Amino acid sequence: MSGDEPRRRRGRRPGHSGSRDAILAAARAAFARDAYAGASLRAIARDADVDPALISHYFGSKAGLFIAATDWPFDPDEGHRATLAGGRDDVGRRLAEFFFGTWSVPEKRISVLGLLQTAFTDPTVAAMLREFFVDEVFEPLLTRLGADQVALRSGLLASQLHGVILSRYVLDLLSQEAFDDATVIDAIAPTLQRYAVGPLTG
Amino acid sequence: MSGDEPRRRRGRRPGHSGSRDAILAAARAAFARDAYAGASLRAIARDADVDPALISHYFGSKAGLFIAATDWPFDPDEGHRATLAGGRDDVGRRLAEFFFGTWSVPEKRISVLGLLQTAFTDPTVAAMLREFFVDEVFEPLLTRLGADQVALRSGLLASQLHGVILSRYVLDLLSQEAFDDATVIDAIAPTLQRYAVGPLTG
Repeated sequence: MSGDEPRRRRGRRPGHSGSRDAILAAARAAFARDAYAGASLRAIARDADVDPALISHYFGSKAGLFIAATDWPFDPDEGHRATLAGGRDDVGRRLAEFFFGTWSVPEKRISVLGLLQTAFTDPTVAAMLREFFVDEVFEPLLTRLGADQVALRSGLLASQLHGVILSRYVLDLLSQEAFDDATVIDAIAPTLQRYAVGPLTG
Repeated sequence: MSGDEPRRRRGRRPGHSGSRDAILAAARAAFARDAYAGASLRAIARDADVDPALISHYFGSKAGLFIAATDWPFDPDEGHRATLAGGRDDVGRRLAEFFFGTWSVPEKRISVLGLLQTAFTDPTVAAMLREFFVDEVFEPLLTRLGADQVALRSGLLASQLHGVILSRYVLDLLSQEAFDDATVIDAIAPTLQRYAVGPLTG
């Protein structure tokens, strides 16, 4: 494993699994303290006593570090590719399909459900989720689509998808027993399509 | 106050404010134990040591008792009247307007936000909310509209409105600072209209 890791620097931990764990622990503390946008990779490296290059080496990016630190269930880049693969007219359906592809797997729901519950009473966790959804999930997608009113469209997309989380996986309204994923995808795809690139007034 | 209350029965509490409080305490225990549909007014009256007629006298109905016991922020009957007042073609907008009329008042949000947070980890609270939303809020509305697929449409309406709760009032996506209620109402009204009475496939 050590062969593809950065050289050891004076006074810092060498690149072994202990340093990966130290980075994750420091990242969790930083995200809990400074939310997502405010967390600094440099400070995380310092707290973990590693070279900042080791974070890139292990996790690629701040988003990659967040995904590993929170056990996040999907990679936004993968979501963007899947959502855009059918072209502009198929964005709503592809986004719904990608969403259900992730959320239909029970063990993938645990981390986000726990964070969402905590967000009701912890403003820093709410900010962390908001910043990750905006900065890494919805705004990059909408920017690639050349959409206007990106902040409003981000919030609207989030509202429909978060509503499915709450209704289907928490309250058991729109229940999995009664309605299969395809039925819900059919119903919400036109909503997501309009929120992404359609008219925002009735 | 005692002038308009039922006659005292043998061995039961007389109809004064102490019996109203006793009914509310017994109702909260019953809803927490049996959710909404399973809670029995007869059992609540027995636990509160009052005549069942006193529950009707004070609260009118099971929904009225639930509203008082949970500090619920709106009366579903009032919501149905407001939503249906503009006729079938204006249901989405009227529903959105009624929703924001309630949710824009911060102190009215507290009870439902607390219950929703608890529902993530307490299946009985989740069931209680689901049953109240289905039995008292969405299905009566859809039935009056003569809608088909009432269970699916209930879940879809709930998903969009719960998503606004989570995104706007918990995560501060679709934030109140950036977007006034009218902007969000314009954007979600066509979604609610379609979920209530429109086609459910794209």
